[in-house]
Amino acid sequence: MNATEDMPPAEPVGSRASRIVIVGAGFAGLEVAKELGKAGLPVVLLDRQNHHLFQPLLYQVATAALSATDVAEPIRKILRKYESVQVLLGEVTKIDLQRHSLELADGSAVGFDYLILATGATHSYFGHTDWARFAPGLKTLADARRIRARSLLAFERAERTVDPEDQERYMTLAVVGGGPTGVELAGSLAELSRFTLARDFRSARPESAKIMLIEAGPRILPAFSEESSAYALRRLEKLGVQVFTGAPVEEITRDQITFAGHTIPVGLVLWAAGVAASPLVAQLGTETDRAGRVAVDSTMRVKGLQNVFVMGDAALFLDDDGKPLPGLAQVAKQQGRHLGRSLARHLREGTPLSPFVYHSRGNTAIVGRHAAVFEQGRFRLTGWIAWLFWAIIHVYLLVGFQHRMTVSLQWLWRYLTFERGARLVTDDSVEASPVETQSASKRRAG
Amino acid sequence: MNATEDMPPAEPVGSRASRIVIVGAGFAGLEVAKELGKAGLPVVLLDRQNHHLFQPLLYQVATAALSATDVAEPIRKILRKYESVQVLLGEVTKIDLQRHSLELADGSAVGFDYLILATGATHSYFGHTDWARFAPGLKTLADARRIRARSLLAFERAERTVDPEDQERYMTLAVVGGGPTGVELAGSLAELSRFTLARDFRSARPESAKIMLIEAGPRILPAFSEESSAYALRRLEKLGVQVFTGAPVEEITRDQITFAGHTIPVGLVLWAAGVAASPLVAQLGTETDRAGRVAVDSTMRVKGLQNVFVMGDAALFLDDDGKPLPGLAQVAKQQGRHLGRSLARHLREGTPLSPFVYHSRGNTAIVGRHAAVFEQGRFRLTGWIAWLFWAIIHVYLLVGFQHRMTVSLQWLWRYLTFERGARLVTDDSVEASPVETQSASKRRAG
Repeated sequence: MNATEDMPPAEPVGSRASRIVIVGAGFAGLEVAKELGKAGLPVVLLDRQNHHLFQPLLYQVATAALSATDVAEPIRKILRKYESVQVLLGEVTKIDLQRHSLELADGSAVGFDYLILATGATHSYFGHTDWARFAPGLKTLADARRIRARSLLAFERAERTVDPEDQERYMTLAVVGGGPTGVELAGSLAELSRFTLARDFRSARPESAKIMLIEAGPRILPAFSEESSAYALRRLEKLGVQVFTGAPVEEITRDQITFAGHTIPVGLVLWAAGVAASPLVAQLGTETDRAGRVAVDSTMRVKGLQNVFVMGDAALFLDDDGKPLPGLAQVAKQQGRHLGRSLARHLREGTPLSPFVYHSRGNTAIVGRHAAVFEQGRFRLTGWIAWLFWAIIHVYLLVGFQHRMTVSLQWLWRYLTFERGARLVTDDSVEASPVETQSASKRRAG
Repeated sequence: MNATEDMPPAEPVGSRASRIVIVGAGFAGLEVAKELGKAGLPVVLLDRQNHHLFQPLLYQVATAALSATDVAEPIRKILRKYESVQVLLGEVTKIDLQRHSLELADGSAVGFDYLILATGATHSYFGHTDWARFAPGLKTLADARRIRARSLLAFERAERTVDPEDQERYMTLAVVGGGPTGVELAGSLAELSRFTLARDFRSARPESAKIMLIEAGPRILPAFSEESSAYALRRLEKLGVQVFTGAPVEEITRDQITFAGHTIPVGLVLWAAGVAASPLVAQLGTETDRAGRVAVDSTMRVKGLQNVFVMGDAALFLDDDGKPLPGLAQVAKQQGRHLGRSLARHLREGTPLSPFVYHSRGNTAIVGRHAAVFEQGRFRLTGWIAWLFWAIIHVYLLVGFQHRMTVSLQWLWRYLTFERGARLVTDDSVEASPVETQSASKRRAG
């Protein structure tokens, strides 16, 4: 937690075109790049992927409702019209504050005058890194594809075995973590097995699959009101999901999960319990919280540094009440837009950076087909109206027009037929035992 | 080439419900399963993938025009309504003709009375198996994803380097093999670089990428007339593709290709030069041709065996002129339908198996955006009418209704905008050096 006091001061404003480097093309990184691009400032945007990911819909890729191309868009395409913005594919391995330089995995270096880190969050297994192998989390398209493959293969194995015990085990799926992602995954898996797959098998009976949602705290959706939380619980139970609360996970192995004294044979465990800031930001050596988020001031500047900013899930930004802003797409998007405008004015007119104020547009979680909870302050909505609200907002927010069109069509189709077109296992070998997951040890971007 | 004379004769007809096992859910396997399912006969269909692949459009997935879900459909979904058909995911490793049994990769066994092999073809590197690593071929969705990632990464590398020589090398792409697949890949890559990517980069200039099509024989599209072949050549050259004929490849390494005395630095080599029957059929120990295709009689029964059939790309079926039928989707489809009907009648009524006669619906190759060649006997069509013809036929042939709808929309969209939504690299690490290809050593199905 020691700031690098020996770092030279930032370049004087206006001396020459300052080089701005953004790491990460999530919601925050894209917005800041767009605003700086509009102002015609030279920007380099680095990401380890060539696409921007619409993470709020990623669970639908994992449960075979949408395909990868529906929720991702090439970064170059999004930023094509901003000619001063250069997009580079690359993984940052080292931040050198003394030399104002980033080191990439291939050994090359990228210099900066201003550095904006928007590298997001990754899974946290609370020290149990060995669980990552058996309980994949959901952050990237590769994660989603892996989870989809494992879920579908669990049913395929159930169809092929003749041992009833094995069959029961294969069709027991556990989701760890009762936040919005866990609730969405459990609801979507229940629908996949109850409706979509039910008619497809001869020996296995996917409709009787056991879906468990396991939460350590006293209730699911803790960020919502008790009423919304109770509604979500009722809906999940109606879908046949077994919800366990006050049940911290004690052990996860290849085919068993232990929680609250039970040890249950499972075919698949998904991890939606914890996130931490991407490890890259720890290299700044400045103040962080327990989740690794970097403390920033009201302008998103890193406390103790002059020319480095952190936004989005990797930042610890305290609101007026001293509470950290949540890790939501809308927070990241608003922060990116604000910093882009504020920094552009600062660099061109010398005005000081302006403080960011978050305007919540409400909080949503999807429980299943036309069932959701929505809250904004004291305004609450549950049921299919909340779901419709969510669906419209999300289609609207999708980056490209083509996506809006095809996603709407797919949803309409799925709504009418319970069909899921994206039910594909596309990995090389389906016979392989559970694929090693690497997500936990990887950053989301940069 | 020794038939297993000591094999016991097939079960007497009608004694009990005969167990029919089909290996491979390509065009031939699916059709035979449908026909036997219609007749209510018990069938097990084995495939190592959970999806049927519409291979004629696979090159569009490889060049980012379509996404995987557009050209693939879950096998269970296609066969859902045929209740006597059980679909099993599994890889056949051994055919035991004595015991009438198949061994799967996981050690389990599946017994059969009748065995239908429709395992398709795989790449053939003509003995140079070491080339497979550097020059991937196109048979599976995993292949397509790999080729897409490598093509897009070649341009990303060009954007990141500052060395003009490296930049030129990265943007040199070679396609080996001047048959329909090679022509389609080269044309589609040229369009991808000239139109779609041209506007996306700042330093690299994808529109000046060098696309080479390398054919060992005297002309491209040798299965077509000389006129069609000349038309395809003109169109490719108009797209900026450099076509080399009479140029057998001598060596392929990580970053070079040698042919006809030239050694040229390349960023990517794609292999579309040769196919061979899937290696599984060689276990029958019966007569094959040089490409490993199994000689079958006019009923598709393997010569020398009583109860084993081979269809599609893995079969050597001679027409009335003694010429082998080509490896086309329409041949496989017709064979599957015929055998299904013929075998159902045989099993239920004791009628002998009937001989198969192929009815060609013509032969197409796509050179680029609204440019194709079509030939049926002496009837020939080139240009955009042939292209439209092809587009309509292919959308019509796509298995699911949802696919027809979304593929039509995507094509319309792409036609109007030159945009390609599927331009995604979704593998875990983009920094990795070329991914190992395993395709060459793998069977397509079964």
